[in-house]
Amino acid sequence: MAGAKTKLNFAISGFPEFTPAVRDVERQWLATLAEVFESYGYANIETPSVETVQTLASKGEDVDKEIYALTRLAAIGENASAKLALHYDLTVPTARYVAKQHGNLTFPFKRYQMQRCWRGERPQEGRYREFTQCDIDVIDADTVSLSYDAEMLEMAVVALTRLNVGPVKFQVSNRKIMDGLAACLGLSDGTLLARILDKVDKLSTEQLSERLSTELGLDATGIDTCIRFCQIKGGPDAISDGMDALGLSNPDADAGRDALCTLLAKVEKSRPDGFIIDGDLAISRGFDYYTGVVYEARFIDFPGYPSICAGGRYENLVGQFMKRKLPGVGISIGLTRIFTKLLTEGLLETGRSTPTEVLVAGDASLTEVEAEALAAQIRATGTNVEILPDVPRLDKQLKYANDKGIPYVWIVRDGKHQLKDMTTGTQKDITVSDFAASRPN
Amino acid sequence: MAGAKTKLNFAISGFPEFTPAVRDVERQWLATLAEVFESYGYANIETPSVETVQTLASKGEDVDKEIYALTRLAAIGENASAKLALHYDLTVPTARYVAKQHGNLTFPFKRYQMQRCWRGERPQEGRYREFTQCDIDVIDADTVSLSYDAEMLEMAVVALTRLNVGPVKFQVSNRKIMDGLAACLGLSDGTLLARILDKVDKLSTEQLSERLSTELGLDATGIDTCIRFCQIKGGPDAISDGMDALGLSNPDADAGRDALCTLLAKVEKSRPDGFIIDGDLAISRGFDYYTGVVYEARFIDFPGYPSICAGGRYENLVGQFMKRKLPGVGISIGLTRIFTKLLTEGLLETGRSTPTEVLVAGDASLTEVEAEALAAQIRATGTNVEILPDVPRLDKQLKYANDKGIPYVWIVRDGKHQLKDMTTGTQKDITVSDFAASRPN
Repeated sequence: MAGAKTKLNFAISGFPEFTPAVRDVERQWLATLAEVFESYGYANIETPSVETVQTLASKGEDVDKEIYALTRLAAIGENASAKLALHYDLTVPTARYVAKQHGNLTFPFKRYQMQRCWRGERPQEGRYREFTQCDIDVIDADTVSLSYDAEMLEMAVVALTRLNVGPVKFQVSNRKIMDGLAACLGLSDGTLLARILDKVDKLSTEQLSERLSTELGLDATGIDTCIRFCQIKGGPDAISDGMDALGLSNPDADAGRDALCTLLAKVEKSRPDGFIIDGDLAISRGFDYYTGVVYEARFIDFPGYPSICAGGRYENLVGQFMKRKLPGVGISIGLTRIFTKLLTEGLLETGRSTPTEVLVAGDASLTEVEAEALAAQIRATGTNVEILPDVPRLDKQLKYANDKGIPYVWIVRDGKHQLKDMTTGTQKDITVSDFAASRPN
Repeated sequence: MAGAKTKLNFAISGFPEFTPAVRDVERQWLATLAEVFESYGYANIETPSVETVQTLASKGEDVDKEIYALTRLAAIGENASAKLALHYDLTVPTARYVAKQHGNLTFPFKRYQMQRCWRGERPQEGRYREFTQCDIDVIDADTVSLSYDAEMLEMAVVALTRLNVGPVKFQVSNRKIMDGLAACLGLSDGTLLARILDKVDKLSTEQLSERLSTELGLDATGIDTCIRFCQIKGGPDAISDGMDALGLSNPDADAGRDALCTLLAKVEKSRPDGFIIDGDLAISRGFDYYTGVVYEARFIDFPGYPSICAGGRYENLVGQFMKRKLPGVGISIGLTRIFTKLLTEGLLETGRSTPTEVLVAGDASLTEVEAEALAAQIRATGTNVEILPDVPRLDKQLKYANDKGIPYVWIVRDGKHQLKDMTTGTQKDITVSDFAASRPN
């Protein structure tokens, strides 16, 4: 990992775009992720960028106000209510897809999806209005095995390791423990509690206490319990000890603790050096649809940077779109967020600005028709080839190859063919058949 | 080309979505197109899905009223005018990209772009609200060689041949001839004439005459000239003879004729069997920004189906976004339009619904931990592997492999390992090292 610090380009504030050499690396990342996901048997799908507002809205995490609604330009001012909107994540669209296509799918349905998402939030470092997410999810009929909770984490760790993104800390919890806490505090369910505790990193203790008091009616003891709850972190023993010290034990809390501790013990075995995978009861993820494990990951070297992976288990999300229980669990890798951070920190080597391997060039003796015919022959060997039209002066052709980073120039001079290696500057006689024979297959 | 006729799935009217097995084929298509484009030295870029309304609007072809504007859901009803919108093609965004990034680019800038576009039009066969376009364009400083007019056509023909889409007819013209016609008719420029003649296939002769009379003030002779003009079709000789018969000769018309006839003669040499590449002066493409060659292609077997490729030369489009002349020429392949037609006609074989090559299965003697460890070993040989969690009954595991089309099942029974070929039903003893050795690299 080494490269120049690269300033991000934006088409419009919040909408990043890349030069060809940077896009080249992004494509390699996408190919690597696809390879990892497929090695575990996950199939690629895409869903439309657009869903109905009804499908997308009211999923929690303050996301409603960031949804981009679509209106035909011609209809603006007609004050029609928007019916369509751009998706802001890939979990909700996938749940809708499974509900719609379930007759065409075999369960457990294991899919990955790498698509752009949109959120109309205030642009800042790591937060863009358009960004690519890479999601893996399993959705199954009736129940989805707890083993997949570990598989998600394992795949995310393998993926980030393969992308060489540097040290990452995963924080894992289980919504059932939060439900247990809610029961213990006399609350009817954990949804609102999860939404508030999701803000624990962003709020001061005073602000947090204020919200717990005002919105949930908790007294000083209840608030203190919540604050101590959020401080429980670490491996299986630390989680168990912390919950015992808090006296937090009821059916939900116990089930959540068992699942979390089993998961942490299991993934610890495959944890690569430099990675941390910890339990952290403060993690709740803002979306209301999570019901079991919840994951979140951050760069260890950039602790203030927003989370780079997140996900969890959702028992009832597909059920919002059909009368059948199809629970799921998944994790989302924030490709754009990770990629742009490494890029701006100078931790990525940029790629090539052209796929061309050979530029066919020549002096005035080479006609364009001859150059095209030669390029076609070389192309037929499986090589990426181009020519500069109208055969300009040879020095101009060599400058073009140099500027674009084309590694070889095939020079025809007075009918004599030579291949120039632009890196070393060496030049040797060449024929198409010799060239074809020397190519690696 | 053979498969079952497949009914299209739509998430919402106008927004198609595919099962994993169909998406598998779409991905192969994208990979094939990328390979063809790169073999000619075109680099991949993506631009944001979103541009300012100002960038997108007023490009002609009635497209303004189909533009989807974005409004934050929370701001709906505030009656704010929309400033952002989804792109409806990739040509305008690329011109804007080149203007914005030109300091980072080497010219001639050759890029391909495969992205979704959006148009709020009435959904019908081949016309969707969200669709993928695959575009190739060259943009150069000051002038862009006429040789690229032929390269675009050649690449599109190679791409469609590689995709095996069946016989295609390309119709080619040149806007300069239309400008010449406009001058000949006493009109100040050809823009409005091109917009009207673009509708020649959709309007009756009476409707066309009415528009030419009302909107351009043409008399009966002028209208007759236009109608005869639109009937000029065929190879270089037919185009020249037709223009001579019409007495159409002036600097624009002559320049356009020369370019068109040279192009047609050149591409005729590389035309594959089953393809037709004809001049057709009725082709004008509705966008105002075209200034030279214009292309359009249709399925020969489905003549009523909308055009599947289109493009042309634009001298001044980048100039709308910066004070510099950067002309370009490009062609766009309507991936979704082509793909869905072949799919619904039963002309595509669908792909695999899972990337999994081996399912690790076993009887009650196999624990999940053992199954996972074995799967990891097989995965390390470069194989896509999965297991069913909690090791269900063996017949259930085999049924899952069969339903998903997984080609091999690695069966562990009483500690004995066998590999079952699900296609032939044969089964043989296996070890991981034998399996690794027998894999093609």
